[in-house]
Amino acid sequence: MIQFEALSRISYGLYIVSSGNKTNGNGYISNTVFQVTAEPPRFAASCNKDNYTVKFIQESGAYAVSVLHNDTDPDIIGHFGYKSGRDIDKLAGLNVRYGETGVPIILNDCIAFLECKVVQTMDVGTHLIFIGELVQSEAIDDTKEAITYLHYRRVRKGMSPKNAPTYIDKSKMGVKPPASDLKKFECTACAYVYDEAEQEVRFADLAEDWICPVCGSEKSDFIEVV
Amino acid sequence: MIQFEALSRISYGLYIVSSGNKTNGNGYISNTVFQVTAEPPRFAASCNKDNYTVKFIQESGAYAVSVLHNDTDPDIIGHFGYKSGRDIDKLAGLNVRYGETGVPIILNDCIAFLECKVVQTMDVGTHLIFIGELVQSEAIDDTKEAITYLHYRRVRKGMSPKNAPTYIDKSKMGVKPPASDLKKFECTACAYVYDEAEQEVRFADLAEDWICPVCGSEKSDFIEVV
Repeated sequence: MIQFEALSRISYGLYIVSSGNKTNGNGYISNTVFQVTAEPPRFAASCNKDNYTVKFIQESGAYAVSVLHNDTDPDIIGHFGYKSGRDIDKLAGLNVRYGETGVPIILNDCIAFLECKVVQTMDVGTHLIFIGELVQSEAIDDTKEAITYLHYRRVRKGMSPKNAPTYIDKSKMGVKPPASDLKKFECTACAYVYDEAEQEVRFADLAEDWICPVCGSEKSDFIEVV
Repeated sequence: MIQFEALSRISYGLYIVSSGNKTNGNGYISNTVFQVTAEPPRFAASCNKDNYTVKFIQESGAYAVSVLHNDTDPDIIGHFGYKSGRDIDKLAGLNVRYGETGVPIILNDCIAFLECKVVQTMDVGTHLIFIGELVQSEAIDDTKEAITYLHYRRVRKGMSPKNAPTYIDKSKMGVKPPASDLKKFECTACAYVYDEAEQEVRFADLAEDWICPVCGSEKSDFIEVV
């Protein structure tokens, strides 16, 4: 038997994985970056094949990982997590440094970064795992805590986007609608769910300039869900 | 330039990865387990080639992951993290359940477990990454928090053993010995370092029945280090 709630006990951080060059680049929000060897230091990053960043990693043979902190601007998470580089230039106007391999490193809300050169790629189905050997790393701000995925989900009420390895299709979890008349509203941009039972404020009572805490979409972008 | 302190900002949990069968089995402490695909749910576990558990994973084609909680008995971490199954039967006397694939699942201090069937193996140098497809998962105790690697290092003062992907050879970090006459003492069993400057108590002043907080070794097992 598979209990999906057991999977949520695995611990993750939250990162921006970016790649490309000075002309073209992109990045996405990832919770699945980890060190796989110490000597030499090598990292693994799991990336959905549909992510626009994949082609940049494959073309440049490198990627950067920006570690986000606990108070990261929700717009940054929404920007990299729920929008596609196919539609917008995600790096425009941001604080970007170019690494030794030429890939863009996003410094907004970043407390440390790694830059890795891809040495192996593993196809694991819907995702590719890029094994990267460390070429550069820097600690930028040691006064802030790295954001954990648990903090993002629990405190910031964030959710996994559909391309994430940890995405949960709630229809498979047997979650029942609340017995009372309290309702839920889902952001059509990022799938964040506003749960009246949890928030203790009716969605209708929220100010009209209220925005999605995850991706910044407008209140009118929400639809009622059961 | 590589700054090793940047690497410590990547977030991990702490797990026992186990494998084998009812007659023979073993397990080790790991911080590098993560989900790599959602559909179907697949996990990655990075395992040092020297770990005795490797042969059990290769022979059985399966492994279990036990998620440890914040107050895990230090003896459990020391037992699985700093002792070898080549010397002792690590599973003797423990609370073990056997999974659908026949592998042992360690339930001591476990709040949730996963059982995975190996579908791919990737050689990344000193370590193997076992990609496992989920066959079973169970949430056992939702009253306790999963222990994070940061908590283990910061609050419990634990360190990466030499076989861990996140092991840091401090000689490469340019760490200088303290300017004062305060000393450091290292546990010869698990490499935990008792730092007088940090603890504010002389090692010599500790009670004779004081034991290593990580692996439970005796005070006499410590040696002075610079």
